[in-house]
Amino acid sequence: MSAPKKVVLAYSGGLDTSIILKWLQTEYGCEVVTFTADLGQGEELEPARKKAELLGIKPENIYIEDVREEFVRDFVFPMFRANAQYEGLYLLGTSIARPLISKRLIEIAEETGADAVAHGATGKGNDQVRFELAAYALNPDIKVIAPWREWDLTSRTRLIDFAEQNQIPIAKDKRGEAPFSVDANLLHTSSEGKVLEDPAVMAPDYVFQRTVHPEDAPDTPEYIEIDFEKGDPVAINGEAMSPATMLTALNEYGRKHGIGRLDLVEGRFVGMKSRGIYETPGGTILIEAHRGIESITMDRGAMHLKDELMPKYAELIYNGFWYSPEREMLQAAIDLSQEHVTGTVRVKLYKGLASTVGRWSEHSLYSEEHVTFEEDAGAYDQKDAAGFIQLQALRLKLIAMRNKRVGG
Amino acid sequence: MSAPKKVVLAYSGGLDTSIILKWLQTEYGCEVVTFTADLGQGEELEPARKKAELLGIKPENIYIEDVREEFVRDFVFPMFRANAQYEGLYLLGTSIARPLISKRLIEIAEETGADAVAHGATGKGNDQVRFELAAYALNPDIKVIAPWREWDLTSRTRLIDFAEQNQIPIAKDKRGEAPFSVDANLLHTSSEGKVLEDPAVMAPDYVFQRTVHPEDAPDTPEYIEIDFEKGDPVAINGEAMSPATMLTALNEYGRKHGIGRLDLVEGRFVGMKSRGIYETPGGTILIEAHRGIESITMDRGAMHLKDELMPKYAELIYNGFWYSPEREMLQAAIDLSQEHVTGTVRVKLYKGLASTVGRWSEHSLYSEEHVTFEEDAGAYDQKDAAGFIQLQALRLKLIAMRNKRVGG
Amino acid sequence: MSAPKKVVLAYSGGLDTSIILKWLQTEYGCEVVTFTADLGQGEELEPARKKAELLGIKPENIYIEDVREEFVRDFVFPMFRANAQYEGLYLLGTSIARPLISKRLIEIAEETGADAVAHGATGKGNDQVRFELAAYALNPDIKVIAPWREWDLTSRTRLIDFAEQNQIPIAKDKRGEAPFSVDANLLHTSSEGKVLEDPAVMAPDYVFQRTVHPEDAPDTPEYIEIDFEKGDPVAINGEAMSPATMLTALNEYGRKHGIGRLDLVEGRFVGMKSRGIYETPGGTILIEAHRGIESITMDRGAMHLKDELMPKYAELIYNGFWYSPEREMLQAAIDLSQEHVTGTVRVKLYKGLASTVGRWSEHSLYSEEHVTFEEDAGAYDQKDAAGFIQLQALRLKLIAMRNKRVGG
Amino acid sequence: MSAPKKVVLAYSGGLDTSIILKWLQTEYGCEVVTFTADLGQGEELEPARKKAELLGIKPENIYIEDVREEFVRDFVFPMFRANAQYEGLYLLGTSIARPLISKRLIEIAEETGADAVAHGATGKGNDQVRFELAAYALNPDIKVIAPWREWDLTSRTRLIDFAEQNQIPIAKDKRGEAPFSVDANLLHTSSEGKVLEDPAVMAPDYVFQRTVHPEDAPDTPEYIEIDFEKGDPVAINGEAMSPATMLTALNEYGRKHGIGRLDLVEGRFVGMKSRGIYETPGGTILIEAHRGIESITMDRGAMHLKDELMPKYAELIYNGFWYSPEREMLQAAIDLSQEHVTGTVRVKLYKGLASTVGRWSEHSLYSEEHVTFEEDAGAYDQKDAAGFIQLQALRLKLIAMRNKRVGG
Repeated sequence: MSAPKKVVLAYSGGLDTSIILKWLQTEYGCEVVTFTADLGQGEELEPARKKAELLGIKPENIYIEDVREEFVRDFVFPMFRANAQYEGLYLLGTSIARPLISKRLIEIAEETGADAVAHGATGKGNDQVRFELAAYALNPDIKVIAPWREWDLTSRTRLIDFAEQNQIPIAKDKRGEAPFSVDANLLHTSSEGKVLEDPAVMAPDYVFQRTVHPEDAPDTPEYIEIDFEKGDPVAINGEAMSPATMLTALNEYGRKHGIGRLDLVEGRFVGMKSRGIYETPGGTILIEAHRGIESITMDRGAMHLKDELMPKYAELIYNGFWYSPEREMLQAAIDLSQEHVTGTVRVKLYKGLASTVGRWSEHSLYSEEHVTFEEDAGAYDQKDAAGFIQLQALRLKLIAMRNKRVGG
Repeated sequence: MSAPKKVVLAYSGGLDTSIILKWLQTEYGCEVVTFTADLGQGEELEPARKKAELLGIKPENIYIEDVREEFVRDFVFPMFRANAQYEGLYLLGTSIARPLISKRLIEIAEETGADAVAHGATGKGNDQVRFELAAYALNPDIKVIAPWREWDLTSRTRLIDFAEQNQIPIAKDKRGEAPFSVDANLLHTSSEGKVLEDPAVMAPDYVFQRTVHPEDAPDTPEYIEIDFEKGDPVAINGEAMSPATMLTALNEYGRKHGIGRLDLVEGRFVGMKSRGIYETPGGTILIEAHRGIESITMDRGAMHLKDELMPKYAELIYNGFWYSPEREMLQAAIDLSQEHVTGTVRVKLYKGLASTVGRWSEHSLYSEEHVTFEEDAGAYDQKDAAGFIQLQALRLKLIAMRNKRVGG
Repeated sequence: MSAPKKVVLAYSGGLDTSIILKWLQTEYGCEVVTFTADLGQGEELEPARKKAELLGIKPENIYIEDVREEFVRDFVFPMFRANAQYEGLYLLGTSIARPLISKRLIEIAEETGADAVAHGATGKGNDQVRFELAAYALNPDIKVIAPWREWDLTSRTRLIDFAEQNQIPIAKDKRGEAPFSVDANLLHTSSEGKVLEDPAVMAPDYVFQRTVHPEDAPDTPEYIEIDFEKGDPVAINGEAMSPATMLTALNEYGRKHGIGRLDLVEGRFVGMKSRGIYETPGGTILIEAHRGIESITMDRGAMHLKDELMPKYAELIYNGFWYSPEREMLQAAIDLSQEHVTGTVRVKLYKGLASTVGRWSEHSLYSEEHVTFEEDAGAYDQKDAAGFIQLQALRLKLIAMRNKRVGG
Repeated sequence: MSAPKKVVLAYSGGLDTSIILKWLQTEYGCEVVTFTADLGQGEELEPARKKAELLGIKPENIYIEDVREEFVRDFVFPMFRANAQYEGLYLLGTSIARPLISKRLIEIAEETGADAVAHGATGKGNDQVRFELAAYALNPDIKVIAPWREWDLTSRTRLIDFAEQNQIPIAKDKRGEAPFSVDANLLHTSSEGKVLEDPAVMAPDYVFQRTVHPEDAPDTPEYIEIDFEKGDPVAINGEAMSPATMLTALNEYGRKHGIGRLDLVEGRFVGMKSRGIYETPGGTILIEAHRGIESITMDRGAMHLKDELMPKYAELIYNGFWYSPEREMLQAAIDLSQEHVTGTVRVKLYKGLASTVGRWSEHSLYSEEHVTFEEDAGAYDQKDAAGFIQLQALRLKLIAMRNKRVGG
């Protein structure tokens, strides 16, 4: 790879990406463009602008954007249509944000004539893969720089030294090692590393940042009604909301009731297992409610197919293949399944648990007439079941007859 | 089908199966053998013996058996090795009991020279299918009698009339319609029908029989440690237990903490949707803990394959195909995956929620050495990730280059 | 089911469906509308009109239509995009025609105000299921009449008697039993039953009607070039063709070279196994060529997903679920995968075998630059493979280390 | 990676691996152990011994072994039980040999106290991955040396120079570039590269080494009968054979009749597409016959599951994951499905085509009694089909009713 001339950096404004910014300038002598996105991580973005300017970035090279609506509308909601859970449990809060960041990096590179993009993910994690696969899928000629895999700033001391030598301001609390590492966006907050590295040891209370402890949540349950249209939530208690507003509101409900905590050991794409603490308050309510509305509006055949496809779909997102033909194929199938996933779900929120307790819809496939224990006025002829069972059983009988004949 | 001469009836001792018993005698003039199983449904069995005798069954034709250990060891635990959940949520508590009952019916038919078996499931539900597919798979020549699909006792009044005409004792509270229908065994209690038929309406509190309301559960969390060996739980807090004892103990923990309630609309095999309230206290703790121990002891490749197979496996059990070659094939794969699923999980129980908060094992694949944020002494070379990503990206780059060339 | 008033009958003009026509008139006293479709079965349709008139059908109730283009365009080609083969081998020639027939039956019922449709499939086969599932999916209120399951004309003698009593003309060669049963359309001819019922015995030569014996095919291979656009064939040797013309031309190539014979024992949806002789001359060339063009234009990720979905897709079509949400979901995924399946395949035809021997495309993903054994000018860095393998191996190493530690 | 002290080299005795041998000695100054396996590639092994001795390998460090029986019994036959075909067509002839070679390399390393193994696969192909994943899975501490990824002998000229400088004998025909690259074993011969690199251009006749041209094959078909036991072929025309003898005999039949040629563009695991010419004469007959015997002895449920699992199974073998828990899980399922795959298949061999034309078995599930067009004496009640269809249709009707109500 030839040296980059102009690099678009995913820049948070924090110490680490500031060091990367400076390192790119000094190591490659290249022009740096910064991209700082509001994905709902809950931090002010304007300080990032000031810091970028301080580090010598030209004003026209500083991109600061609120992408929350795009994030929820084009990434989070499509994923929730699939009820995606990696390894049965993880709601993919970090994974789903990466392709959007890469997409904007590539677009900004095109706008600014940059030939490279850079990110601050380490060489051990999944995020490097997600950033880079998305970048290459969108621009096969782009250079991707991952300083953590390249440089020799391999200890906290060296990083701090480099920062001091390069006049990078260091917040007082960043001098020492953080007790764990955090990633956050509108969908979730993840914490990992350091004090969390022994999966036998319970996560300390101070790790949780996004939700109250279930023990501290209200002693009275709260009930909310979520309206869905074609698989996406559109209103709470009758109040229509944009995608990001919806997720923000669900997050607040979840936070208050201690909902969405997950202590998980997961298999990383790069081969080792890692332990993470995830808080996905709104997402945890959303998946419960989405299953609730699907349960009355989606046909069994469609649902079972969708359930079979889900693990692969979740794996693709986890592994960074958002921009791959196979993810898009699965999305096409999933989206089609949502055409009638429209209606309302009533969810109970209480002490860490979100539970569907009612659901109704114009699009319902539930037929009280058919299922009733009462007289059904001929809707269903129980005698049909005899023939149904006989033909379902035929192949099993033929096996049994064969096995009786030959043993086994 | 020629008329049966001797029928083994799955007999609970309750009013409905007593009516069936008498109807078989009168309709077919055949000898009846009763089989009453203790599957952990929480009812005394000896009254069933008395009632059977009263209805004229010869003592040698009355089979009453405690099959709880077999049920949990050979049916429940193998199923939990798969983390089976039908339509993403249902732990299959009713489904998994049916093949065991059919197996004993067929065995008793063989012992007693009976040519038929009979069950009390209706023509609208899944249970008729489960009973009958299992029966035919085990004995292709058996006759199966499903009185609910045959007789004309199609209203409560007619049933009561028939009972009175035939001197069948009727408990006072059975004269009227039950407000909902119940099935129970050691794994779960299900309630459906009548007051539960409108899926928009919350289940009344009195429906729940197996768990305290989360609101009434202890205000303080309880922590338990569950030991697993090859995928099955073997001890709680260090105390070894037999399978049925284990599930009984987990049920008590779950009951106390209000764990395992599920309000579900599901797609029945016979084609319509139905709404059920399930209480699976111990099973809900068990699946959480099982996932917890798998998370450190099972390889990612094995786990993802297992997750992809699960929906089909669950569907097979739900649909009544326990005794089918494809269920056995999946079981062989699943069981092999459990060879190293041995170790301990710490679970927090609180107000309806069971959460893994720690796990450890001699068989762990988690390597702190590899995953650490600290210096890893060469266990992992971050530069490998660059090559890994390049080759993962190659096909995506080739697509992007093609699309740039031809559009699309 | 109340008696039908007006029935649309899938009418071939042959003896059996003529008997059905008359039986419907006499049994139900209902008005009959006939629908005779040219699906490419190679028979004149006008005799069916005359015969219908002779049997008292009003002219406005006689529908005779050439649906060959619709058949190939909307049913055959979409299916071939999936490379669908039931049980690994069967190209689904009969299965794929049934939903189209049912669709027209239902449409004609609507146009003519009929309340029922009728078909001539027996109660043992798959076709009854396919006809009826499609009919019910398109009109849930329609009545479907399957005379073979209802009437008492259960022997050849009775059928002939009924025909004679009702003045139905009987072709001389139809008095006796046919030595086997045939179904044909533009995609294939299937033969089954009677002389073919013992699967150990080779099919007699006279069974084959659609292809020359490979031994009689030309001694010199023929090469053709097939152009594809978005997964469908559009030209042969540069000559553009409509869908039905394309399949007709491929059939002629296949016929001449003895291509597309299959002697299969298959598992029917209704539970037993049956043996069929299939001749699919054009379809066999088409699937080979389609795989050929996919091999250079379709990404590995998309292709492997498609290969995994195919068996379920083929099963759905075989079982009659063309009009089901899950088939449509799979179709959406498959169709998306074909966006770039455009280009040309060279196929060798010789003595029963169609073999891809060359393929090229503007949309090709094949990169000689990357794959070459020669100097590749940096397109691919072989050192990347080392990192790729290390990370692929990491989980296997962790398993091996664990197993070394604990055994197993 | 520290320098290896003793290396076990997969040694063919050819020029390239002789150069590697010498390079290992000079580059690392390490002791070399050679392993030369007879996998049925059709070359004498003793010259490899002489050459190794000439290059200074101690006699006790020269391992020459005939592993053909193990290869077919433990690798080829288990794979054929799955009907494995990568990307729908490739019978995995190269892929399946690699794990066996790695297994022996690792075992010999243990016996000889070697700390490393080496292979002659390049950095662009799949074989490096297969060799190395298998090696690491069997010994996580082994070092693997892949000289083609390390050295600077990047042109034919440099290789020849190195050989001459190191007194490595060079066969006259090896001085120039071979027109294509070949790999062979008892299962297949693959050819790729150079003259085959343009996938539009037909493979020249001289590429084919293992089969006669179909045009030159006998003008008369030959019929053979293959006996299977539990999924593996055990006799031809009644003559029992060991696994390797069986495959050798099938190869001779295939060779003679021009069977098993495949011209394929495939997606490599390392990301690019490549074009290969494969000849798998015996394997092509075997998969046809295996499907034939499965068609009467294997239940539909088992077969369809197996068909759905196959693409993943084939991909695992292609990608080098033979020694992975997920391949072993799938194998357990597949092997269980073969318990009754016992019986005889009659195959017609003619001009490139192997076709099943008859099959019979004591284990057959085919029931002429059930399928017959004749009177079936009550084996099957056609009226059952009505109920079967009604319940299969119920969910489709409910969808149709819903869609009629709300549109869509």
